[in-house]
Amino acid sequence: MRILVLGADGYLGWPTAIHLSAAGHEVAVSDNFARRGYDVEMGVDSLVPISSMDERLAAWTEVSGKTLPWYEGDLIDPKFVHEMVADFRPEAIVHYAEQRAAPYSMIDQAHAIYTQTNNVVGNLNVMYAIGDIDRDIHLVKLGTMGEYGQPNIDIEEGWLEVEHKGRTDRMIYPKRPGSFYHCTKVHDSTNLEFGCRIWGLRVTDLNQGVVYGIDTEHTKLDDRLATRFDYDGVFGTVLNRFVVQAVLGHPLTVYGNGSQTRGYLNIVDTVECLRLACENPADRGEFRVFNQMTETFSLNQLAETIAHAYHGDVTIDHVENPRVEIYDHYYKVVHTALEGLGLSPTLLSDTLIDHVFDVVERYKDRVDQSAIMPTVRWADTHSELVSAALAGKK
Amino acid sequence: MRILVLGADGYLGWPTAIHLSAAGHEVAVSDNFARRGYDVEMGVDSLVPISSMDERLAAWTEVSGKTLPWYEGDLIDPKFVHEMVADFRPEAIVHYAEQRAAPYSMIDQAHAIYTQTNNVVGNLNVMYAIGDIDRDIHLVKLGTMGEYGQPNIDIEEGWLEVEHKGRTDRMIYPKRPGSFYHCTKVHDSTNLEFGCRIWGLRVTDLNQGVVYGIDTEHTKLDDRLATRFDYDGVFGTVLNRFVVQAVLGHPLTVYGNGSQTRGYLNIVDTVECLRLACENPADRGEFRVFNQMTETFSLNQLAETIAHAYHGDVTIDHVENPRVEIYDHYYKVVHTALEGLGLSPTLLSDTLIDHVFDVVERYKDRVDQSAIMPTVRWADTHSELVSAALAGKK
Repeated sequence: MRILVLGADGYLGWPTAIHLSAAGHEVAVSDNFARRGYDVEMGVDSLVPISSMDERLAAWTEVSGKTLPWYEGDLIDPKFVHEMVADFRPEAIVHYAEQRAAPYSMIDQAHAIYTQTNNVVGNLNVMYAIGDIDRDIHLVKLGTMGEYGQPNIDIEEGWLEVEHKGRTDRMIYPKRPGSFYHCTKVHDSTNLEFGCRIWGLRVTDLNQGVVYGIDTEHTKLDDRLATRFDYDGVFGTVLNRFVVQAVLGHPLTVYGNGSQTRGYLNIVDTVECLRLACENPADRGEFRVFNQMTETFSLNQLAETIAHAYHGDVTIDHVENPRVEIYDHYYKVVHTALEGLGLSPTLLSDTLIDHVFDVVERYKDRVDQSAIMPTVRWADTHSELVSAALAGKK
Repeated sequence: MRILVLGADGYLGWPTAIHLSAAGHEVAVSDNFARRGYDVEMGVDSLVPISSMDERLAAWTEVSGKTLPWYEGDLIDPKFVHEMVADFRPEAIVHYAEQRAAPYSMIDQAHAIYTQTNNVVGNLNVMYAIGDIDRDIHLVKLGTMGEYGQPNIDIEEGWLEVEHKGRTDRMIYPKRPGSFYHCTKVHDSTNLEFGCRIWGLRVTDLNQGVVYGIDTEHTKLDDRLATRFDYDGVFGTVLNRFVVQAVLGHPLTVYGNGSQTRGYLNIVDTVECLRLACENPADRGEFRVFNQMTETFSLNQLAETIAHAYHGDVTIDHVENPRVEIYDHYYKVVHTALEGLGLSPTLLSDTLIDHVFDVVERYKDRVDQSAIMPTVRWADTHSELVSAALAGKK
């Protein structure tokens, strides 16, 4: 199958691209290197050194004998997207190419607006390219479990059978996103579901949990094939960050009372989920949603798991929660669709965490300790405009 | 009360501004004249001649003795929005300033992206100005009944009490928007509900039905106070367009089988709803939604009502539906909140239609008959990029 992977330079895009290639698909890759730009902006870097795209592509060709066509460009540019899709003519497009950090979107007004326009417009340009060039192309779009929030009812897979005043309908599951970034994934879902109705698009929206882990079967084959690993307060997701904190002897920083429960999955399951979604496309006109996660944990459970697995001393600190979140909430997620397609979950285990500890140990001199603590507070607006505007008041 | 009206040069923004001023409020007005720009772009014009903003403001001062502070600028510019809010320090902001035509958003990729960025970013800039400057400001935001689509259950006012597998939650009512424009109103609602949670904003989202009618108590006071009246296939909403067609002897153009049912309200009720929403603010942190409509009609009922009311011969043509819509659907809307605040609906009546016929008769020489029929088809993408991209394919 011909598969175009957008955002192929990212934490998950790169392992997905080579996983799909290894599975026998003809894979092309695209990126605008925005993620590396955020590193420069924030003054941080991946814990694991990553190669340039040229080096990655050359290494994959050496290792696998396969060549991945490469399209450098920005999805914000409609001409680039149209030309790429018309040139490669994919049967499936895997779309990772969005700004994906909740804290980054909450830094200030400019970052919120960048995140919303970048994600929404990029996705619209992909939709229009498919609408124009070939409506049979299956769009496999990354969403997030964070679209749902923490409802007091079970989280179904994107759709909800509603019974109300004696009547019924199958409706989009109501969303309660937790950041301006999470809002963009809701916006994308809204636009995509509409696109399925008017243009008969085929869409799979993968509402993914928090991904942890450091490598996959194929990133391990050569150091040049490694993917990035973020531990900082803006891009570092929680389990990866806890592992780095444990290795450094830094307290594990649990935000708030730690009862916040979320869905998680291992990076090796992410790449398998993408393969399964591509190989089992949605129907024409179908807006299909899968909850891409395998386990739920509270922050306290995660911290205790890391503390237990680590061979040294670990302390757990409850720090002031920079986010606006609810505690002690109900959280039950239906996630049977991908398992129905053949996913065998790789659950969180001591063995697996041990391997992550080893890799972090290897690179621990690269850690910038000053980047670990959260700096972005949800309740603040952080605008530089306000002082200027108020100073200018007549 | 100090009220800032954004989009005050539009069909409803202008009558709302002077209605609030006449009710004794201190009103300031803002616009970027985008709506007049769309006229130039599409080669159409308001049926009723409209004065410049300077003339309008001078006329209102003459008639009422009141001066409306005026802020010309674009909500896309965060600095403009911050300075305006910091300067006027409103207690309420009425936000009409979005691209509001579904067909315009469906013209092609560029118009879809313009509509989405213009509406979403403008609204985010207003949210940030409130978040930064004064979180007590009540934002009264125009949404649309078109966010809901045509669900098979009753349409509640923005929120739905969901019972699922023996558990319950109060959730955002699931949306099924009917154009890229309607999607933007869903995006705005998503961002606003999030803003209420993190910043404690006060928001009233007015999900408005299709508005008809030509003037209000105050626009009638002087020709220079008239508001625009659109009849063209892009900006003309259905009842207003049917009246123009009847007067011109043009068949009433019903799209498809005409069973599509929607909510409607008279322009005189719109301005009252805005007054009631402003004078009864939402609580801090409350995302409040009102369904702003008074009656439901199918297209066939509307066409028959116009045909019956008009003194001359009227024919009804069922034309190919340019939109993607469902027919013969369930449609029942709860709309008791605004009536609970004191709205006395002005229902569609022969008397009222007679008055609209009279005004249209007065200006019928201004009609461009070639602009009446729909030209934008929902199922098409109309992209100029595709031929270029396909021609460039290797």
